[in-house]
Amino acid sequence: MQESKNIAVVGSGLVGSLLAIYLRNRGHEVDVYDRRPDIRTIEFSGRSINLAMSLRGWLALEEVGVAEEVKKLAIRMDKRAIHLPGKPLYFQPYGKEGEAIYSISRGVLNKKMITLAEKAGARFIFESKVWDVDLDEAAIHTGKSENESRMSARYDHIFGADGAFSRVRHKMQRQSRFNYAQEFLNTGYKELTIPANADGSHKLEKHSLHIWPRGAFMLIALPNLDGSFTCTLFMPFEGAHSFESLDSDIKVQQFFEKHFPDVVEDIPSLLKEFFRNPTSALVTIKCFPWAYSDKVALVGDSAHAIVPFYGQGMNAGFEDIRVLNNLMNVHENDWHSIFRQYESERKPNTDAIAELSFRNFMEMSTKTADPQFILRKKIEGRFAAKHPDKWAPLYSRVTFSERPYAEALAEGDRQRAIMDRIMEIKNIADIWDSEEVEQRILGLLETTVPAEMWK
Amino acid sequence: MQESKNIAVVGSGLVGSLLAIYLRNRGHEVDVYDRRPDIRTIEFSGRSINLAMSLRGWLALEEVGVAEEVKKLAIRMDKRAIHLPGKPLYFQPYGKEGEAIYSISRGVLNKKMITLAEKAGARFIFESKVWDVDLDEAAIHTGKSENESRMSARYDHIFGADGAFSRVRHKMQRQSRFNYAQEFLNTGYKELTIPANADGSHKLEKHSLHIWPRGAFMLIALPNLDGSFTCTLFMPFEGAHSFESLDSDIKVQQFFEKHFPDVVEDIPSLLKEFFRNPTSALVTIKCFPWAYSDKVALVGDSAHAIVPFYGQGMNAGFEDIRVLNNLMNVHENDWHSIFRQYESERKPNTDAIAELSFRNFMEMSTKTADPQFILRKKIEGRFAAKHPDKWAPLYSRVTFSERPYAEALAEGDRQRAIMDRIMEIKNIADIWDSEEVEQRILGLLETTVPAEMWK
Repeated sequence: MQESKNIAVVGSGLVGSLLAIYLRNRGHEVDVYDRRPDIRTIEFSGRSINLAMSLRGWLALEEVGVAEEVKKLAIRMDKRAIHLPGKPLYFQPYGKEGEAIYSISRGVLNKKMITLAEKAGARFIFESKVWDVDLDEAAIHTGKSENESRMSARYDHIFGADGAFSRVRHKMQRQSRFNYAQEFLNTGYKELTIPANADGSHKLEKHSLHIWPRGAFMLIALPNLDGSFTCTLFMPFEGAHSFESLDSDIKVQQFFEKHFPDVVEDIPSLLKEFFRNPTSALVTIKCFPWAYSDKVALVGDSAHAIVPFYGQGMNAGFEDIRVLNNLMNVHENDWHSIFRQYESERKPNTDAIAELSFRNFMEMSTKTADPQFILRKKIEGRFAAKHPDKWAPLYSRVTFSERPYAEALAEGDRQRAIMDRIMEIKNIADIWDSEEVEQRILGLLETTVPAEMWK
Repeated sequence: MQESKNIAVVGSGLVGSLLAIYLRNRGHEVDVYDRRPDIRTIEFSGRSINLAMSLRGWLALEEVGVAEEVKKLAIRMDKRAIHLPGKPLYFQPYGKEGEAIYSISRGVLNKKMITLAEKAGARFIFESKVWDVDLDEAAIHTGKSENESRMSARYDHIFGADGAFSRVRHKMQRQSRFNYAQEFLNTGYKELTIPANADGSHKLEKHSLHIWPRGAFMLIALPNLDGSFTCTLFMPFEGAHSFESLDSDIKVQQFFEKHFPDVVEDIPSLLKEFFRNPTSALVTIKCFPWAYSDKVALVGDSAHAIVPFYGQGMNAGFEDIRVLNNLMNVHENDWHSIFRQYESERKPNTDAIAELSFRNFMEMSTKTADPQFILRKKIEGRFAAKHPDKWAPLYSRVTFSERPYAEALAEGDRQRAIMDRIMEIKNIADIWDSEEVEQRILGLLETTVPAEMWK
């Protein structure tokens, strides 16, 4: 019989709100703290990349019965739309017929999640910063500012869902033998907007994630329900093509006209947004352990922030919660075992998606325009279509499967090694769709061990 | 013409003291702060591994004319003495005739370095903790405790030589886009002592670094001038053979009698030391950048703490100082260029020695007892002796050379790939010293590119 507990969740973002719904459904008392005001009462910040919800995210929402409601806020994207300079637009389907990812505005989703958590009975305490956490006592000390009078509250358990620069994790870091790493990309990002047409329709093909790959920099655009697109420019902070170098209206205008001529007209507030919106950094954060005794645990970005190039940040955080919930079913009131198994099961998988996301940064910005890479993808695509049981594409393993990320990474490495051998064939460009190449791949598959086998 | 500057060095350890000597020799005013009392006035802590000074360390000392004086404190070690259970003791020379590393007690050396720095005119301010650093102003705020009145002092430049858990680096960490990683081994260590014989002589062969490799754990012993040996037991914190499991006198005694029967009698205070001395953690720390503007720079462990298994921690820190000094010769008063080139030149090399040190942990504890590994080393040794121009052993590149660590790592990887191929030869154990194997290595060397070429 499961006992009802008093639980604090620090952070009212997507993962914290979802966790609150799960915990309420299990009959616990839940207080969610956030240092910011209620996001439902304020304008959103203009420093966000649209979310791409995929299978792992949907499964976590379905389990608490809120998937349908969230889907109303999402736009289906079944393909990449690739804009190359001087070439016609072309489309790459993300998966098989019926498979798609879903574009959702972070702000819109967060508001909805908080409302759903409130409906489930969670209490939200906004504008209440957690200044200190007592790990042994599961007590938190909060207040509006450092000098104002503090409130203290003791719980049975505390979850840190307070993001990449987590205060809860910061407290755990002071333990001896706490592994921690933060690594920034030299590439930053800036949000821009393509507004809707006057009739509310989308200016670009609506059911696509649009990409303008340009080597060291890249523009992407994801659709919103209101007909607009949220664009993100990824570019190095310093160097030849960089945020630092684009320091005047004329330079920005010329840069966009030169590199993004097919879309520059669609961003009417380009200069205003470019200089008003912040240039944000991209960080990978890893740490271990994720939990302290049976008292405190980290979920989502506070445990494993990743770069956004696989669209899996939120999906991985939501999957944390589903895994936790399954372990609560197994271990019931034994929170020690819940937390130990949670961190040991999730850690290899979030390390894997961190690595895959970093690699996709390289792939999206440089390789999507490389003929050798396109040929490789064509060969893989042909083989996967003929032998779907033998060759699930890496992207599909990550995006349209609930198998562990670590397995996807290992299997992706195996496929890459096989394709390296195939691409070494001298006249591969001529015989890529031949029986010979197909047989060669089948042979190589037989002499290597699939990742599922050694898991 | 070089201008004299006012410079603060935070930390009076080995690297801080050496830096103070260098800076004084260049005509700067130098204040060295340390939160601890003067080490010359106190008993040393009992949580140290003896140092192994090798070429890089000696070169840095020679350049300021203190090598001879330090050598008086050191004992030459020209070989490993390997103690395997049930087998006769055997010796592995570290290098060629005349090459050796030198055992020095950390405490003894630190006292000498402070005295040498004082003699050079550096001011030491002990029991003065740096609570805060103003990076833009190069100002430090010090005091005996957090509540007592603080002193502030402004300098032209500040160096953080305050070790793995550096306060100066902590302040630099708050910048955006500061990369940082701390990773602990699951293995810890404990100091033990083999005292001298009654006549002051050493109980074990004096000119050797003694190793008792036992797989997951390992004992080492380094000689001291007074006839004693400083021993270090490396062992996992938790698990079957672990510090956690050895929780009683009888368990410790039985453990040593079983695994180290040839030396247990030589550690008369085993039980007392085992339970009195702390169990210390081993950490690798990486960060970047190492410098802030032309104001503040990190040196030694504060920039790059490594695990001790290559005996290069102090050597790498001393080499930082020699590199800095060379850059001060080149760039004179342009401290901005000094710091930029210092961090970009040193970072790949300290990353390389971090990796090599971690790998040597595996090698020392497990592989030194593995027949395949011993055969591999014999083949390499034979080839290196016949072709010294073609095959400098990795250990020698790290220990007896001043070429960059990154080159040693790359060249070591190339050699390892070649030896992997050689060890695949079916009857290698029978033909290891044949002309055929030698020719095969020569052939493989010709078809791969040495690391020097692409540097």
